[in-house]
Amino acid sequence: MSNPTQVLTDYINLMIASFHQQNIRQVVIAPGSRSTPVALLLAQAAKRGHFQLYVDVDERSAAFFALGMAKKSQRPTLLLCTSGTAAANFFPAICEAKLSHIPLIVLTTDRPPELTNVGAPQAIDQNRLYGDQVKSFLQLPLPDAQPDVHTYVAFAVQRIVAASLAAPAGPVHLNLPLRKPLMPDLTSRYVQTAVKIEFSKTQTQLTPAALAALQLKLSQGKLLIVAGPTTSLEQHQPLLTFAKRYHVPILADPLSQLRQGTNDLSITCSDLVFKTTKALPAALKPDLILRIGTTMVSAALGQWLATRPCPIYYIDPNQRLDDYTKATTTQLPVSENWFFENCQLQMPPAQRQFSLAWQQLQQHYQHWLSQHLTTLDEASVPYFMSQHLSSSQIFISNSMPIRDFDNFFAPNKGNFTLLCNRGANGIDGVISTALGTSLHEQRPNFLVTGDLAFFHDMNGLMLTTRYRFNLTIILINNNGGGIFSFLPQAKATAYFETLFGTPQNLDVAAVSQLYHANYQLITSKSAFETAISQPQSGLTILEIKTDRPQNTKRHQQLTQSWQREMEQFYATAASKK
Amino acid sequence: MSNPTQVLTDYINLMIASFHQQNIRQVVIAPGSRSTPVALLLAQAAKRGHFQLYVDVDERSAAFFALGMAKKSQRPTLLLCTSGTAAANFFPAICEAKLSHIPLIVLTTDRPPELTNVGAPQAIDQNRLYGDQVKSFLQLPLPDAQPDVHTYVAFAVQRIVAASLAAPAGPVHLNLPLRKPLMPDLTSRYVQTAVKIEFSKTQTQLTPAALAALQLKLSQGKLLIVAGPTTSLEQHQPLLTFAKRYHVPILADPLSQLRQGTNDLSITCSDLVFKTTKALPAALKPDLILRIGTTMVSAALGQWLATRPCPIYYIDPNQRLDDYTKATTTQLPVSENWFFENCQLQMPPAQRQFSLAWQQLQQHYQHWLSQHLTTLDEASVPYFMSQHLSSSQIFISNSMPIRDFDNFFAPNKGNFTLLCNRGANGIDGVISTALGTSLHEQRPNFLVTGDLAFFHDMNGLMLTTRYRFNLTIILINNNGGGIFSFLPQAKATAYFETLFGTPQNLDVAAVSQLYHANYQLITSKSAFETAISQPQSGLTILEIKTDRPQNTKRHQQLTQSWQREMEQFYATAASKK
Repeated sequence: MSNPTQVLTDYINLMIASFHQQNIRQVVIAPGSRSTPVALLLAQAAKRGHFQLYVDVDERSAAFFALGMAKKSQRPTLLLCTSGTAAANFFPAICEAKLSHIPLIVLTTDRPPELTNVGAPQAIDQNRLYGDQVKSFLQLPLPDAQPDVHTYVAFAVQRIVAASLAAPAGPVHLNLPLRKPLMPDLTSRYVQTAVKIEFSKTQTQLTPAALAALQLKLSQGKLLIVAGPTTSLEQHQPLLTFAKRYHVPILADPLSQLRQGTNDLSITCSDLVFKTTKALPAALKPDLILRIGTTMVSAALGQWLATRPCPIYYIDPNQRLDDYTKATTTQLPVSENWFFENCQLQMPPAQRQFSLAWQQLQQHYQHWLSQHLTTLDEASVPYFMSQHLSSSQIFISNSMPIRDFDNFFAPNKGNFTLLCNRGANGIDGVISTALGTSLHEQRPNFLVTGDLAFFHDMNGLMLTTRYRFNLTIILINNNGGGIFSFLPQAKATAYFETLFGTPQNLDVAAVSQLYHANYQLITSKSAFETAISQPQSGLTILEIKTDRPQNTKRHQQLTQSWQREMEQFYATAASKK
Repeated sequence: MSNPTQVLTDYINLMIASFHQQNIRQVVIAPGSRSTPVALLLAQAAKRGHFQLYVDVDERSAAFFALGMAKKSQRPTLLLCTSGTAAANFFPAICEAKLSHIPLIVLTTDRPPELTNVGAPQAIDQNRLYGDQVKSFLQLPLPDAQPDVHTYVAFAVQRIVAASLAAPAGPVHLNLPLRKPLMPDLTSRYVQTAVKIEFSKTQTQLTPAALAALQLKLSQGKLLIVAGPTTSLEQHQPLLTFAKRYHVPILADPLSQLRQGTNDLSITCSDLVFKTTKALPAALKPDLILRIGTTMVSAALGQWLATRPCPIYYIDPNQRLDDYTKATTTQLPVSENWFFENCQLQMPPAQRQFSLAWQQLQQHYQHWLSQHLTTLDEASVPYFMSQHLSSSQIFISNSMPIRDFDNFFAPNKGNFTLLCNRGANGIDGVISTALGTSLHEQRPNFLVTGDLAFFHDMNGLMLTTRYRFNLTIILINNNGGGIFSFLPQAKATAYFETLFGTPQNLDVAAVSQLYHANYQLITSKSAFETAISQPQSGLTILEIKTDRPQNTKRHQQLTQSWQREMEQFYATAASKK
């Protein structure tokens, strides 16, 4: 018989080997006592080069940090914690991972059965703790030397990691009960003991008949692509080739990754167009829409789709039909790349005119932007970034920043990646997620956030004192919840500041000092452009102070200005005819 | 037909009136958009004096703050948030509330059905979001003017609030879907519209035959009371009268609230006694044990009970038998007060000797404490507090502080309340919970915490910039996870600091400045005693810097010293015979 320490060590090492076999290379550990053997053996495996390991004390930040890593790398991150409320602190990031389809492997350690649900210390009921917010749950057996148990663990662990990656990807939860003694044998050399299971890749394609029928239908009228956020961060090459060949304009969400490079078919004014236009000018009206990606940032675009302006074909590789506009007429349950590589059309001559109309509008929009966004404010931050940066990765907070990016981040020939937690659209965990996405990114990394989101995840900054990051935080400080000033409750002045404005009066310079960040208060366009074009290494916080009521007014003015501009544009076009 | 705004306003006001009818008076709001009508109408009702209302941006802190208020007041606190991950941030406090039996009314607002599970923005699946961590779940109907629906809502809301209070108390979850427009009519005057349901109070008692049989049994030998944490914060008067009449010593957990006042039967050395004694001296051996309260802080005491030293009678009003020692031989499913008011014994003469033996040991222990705890360190902080304060409320963090309080907070004639989140024993949310418990407390309020727990809930300090609190935080800063130095992993030196020590190098003076707290670095016993005996109003942070390895050594020395002391004490006693 092996001794308990040996049984524990072999069992945990087998689990770790099973994770490694399924290509897990990144681990985030929130410290604790019950997780001791897993943490120590993971650290040992990391020392031997099998894993990259990060430790973070605040489990909420740790989980968002792991989410950021998985979001960027498209590979599962392993997230470990001890028993009790530690596990509950992972919950916000898990909810986000579920909706944004990010593979997160959550391993909670637990008290053994004899200490479960009998008032033992630090023992919450961890069985299916995250309910429907995870894709799959695995209650692991206690450490055991039985060959059958080992075979099962290597199998079940690999299977659940694969489940996290199967479309749609998402978080999975493993709960591991452990008995004392919790100290493993660190002299026992870690070897790869798990037999690898290969999970074959598959491809779903339309039947030849269905494709032929579809091609006929899509060739019947003016075609428009609506590109929502992409989760795969893939390069869209087949889509771009298709759009260019058939002259198809693309309404490009900021998170579609289609606002970069040399394509001139990306339209970025659609939110403002649909916000200000009751009826789309005839020249811009499509006969058919092809949708790709997930839920668009623009509510106005969503509202337009919900009016069912024409048949809508939705490329939906996850086969979930997550379309809150409920306007899809045909689901295409295939990958974007398969579709655009295989779909061949015979477009009517009107398509080229249609495409030109959108492109002209977009050119006009960009000119208008250059005329109206000339001083530093909340609206011009994304615009200046789009104009002044060459290549970079920008993580954007929810609430106002992502909306401003939708409207004001213009197309750019550089190599940009724009990211945002757009599953549940929370303002939590943005610093930690941004740090996770920045880890292996060589381009300059930015986070654009408001002050409430910054405050919410301030603990995430602690990671920067422990590991090396390059991140410039652009903190738009309007001292409170800026978005609420745009909503009807702004009129409830007696309660507004207390319930919605919620000024935090945060001394950002002091926070910067606390976490040893470079700090700069930015008060002008030129200072901003200089600061972002020469980002310092390490952590930098650029604070831009704005005023909420003024910002609301400014946005209203911009919207009205664009509305006039567009009306004039079409009046002129009509008079020329 | 009423207009939608009127329907919304009347419906939400009815809900609020139902909360009010069931004696909810405290509300914590985490701001958001979907919750707008509830927040505004609650604020309006608060303005009219129906509620006390607090707003906190970080939902995790907000939930622990609400937990603290409910813990202290023994009345349910209403906790409100918007849809999405906001709700997930409540989870850690909910898990704690479930295990520590605290009535928390969690009201999450949600998207309407047509925006559920179809990829709509900020819409996670909130149906039964907290799974088994709440006692009860209520999916509310959409706002409606139907009289039947109003009757149902007033009934269902009152019933679920009552459910949160029924023994064992705990958290409940109400999920409220809301459609736009979300702006209520604030000119519509809030009136009490809900018909109140009275929930009659009940009392469970033993049958006369069962009581008679029990009294006979309990009169058969030397009786010892083991008093664990109390959740009701009641005064224990019947217990104290009983103990005095029958000379029953009480092993008093720091959270039993039995280490205060003039009783001289409370024994506070039991953890060190059981930690250092293989076999209890004959003079201290009970024949029968009466247990009250929840899981004791002392693991050593738990281990001794688990050896089943004698029959154990457990007063278990919640009828859950949450006894992880699994040594209970008789469950007494009645209230502590009923039991001690009704149980009459005929104790054998040996009982008085037995009681004296424990009291002599305790006197000896207190003398030993006074000899050995003379300079400022982690162990002496609770001791100096017990000796130097007159009356106060002390919130204690988990991990090391609560263990040090168990060993070193000696009985005191003052009026003390000692509190701790002892359901799940997490180190999360301690600042927010402490602030919640301090709200209506006139005695000086203290929080004793380590630096990791302080860091974890630093966002909780934001509350102090918005509302008036009197709290002195005693921050024992050993720059990391002090408890791990006591565990076997301390020997894994290659990984220890990274995985377990996790120094945060937090500049506490800078944090104090950020939140406008009075700050003092305390380096001596006298400075400490002065600072705690004259606590400043507002928020004060007293930082005591300690060294982890030194602290471990110090605790070992103290344990060994006490072991020698006790051995000598019994050797002397034996030689005297």
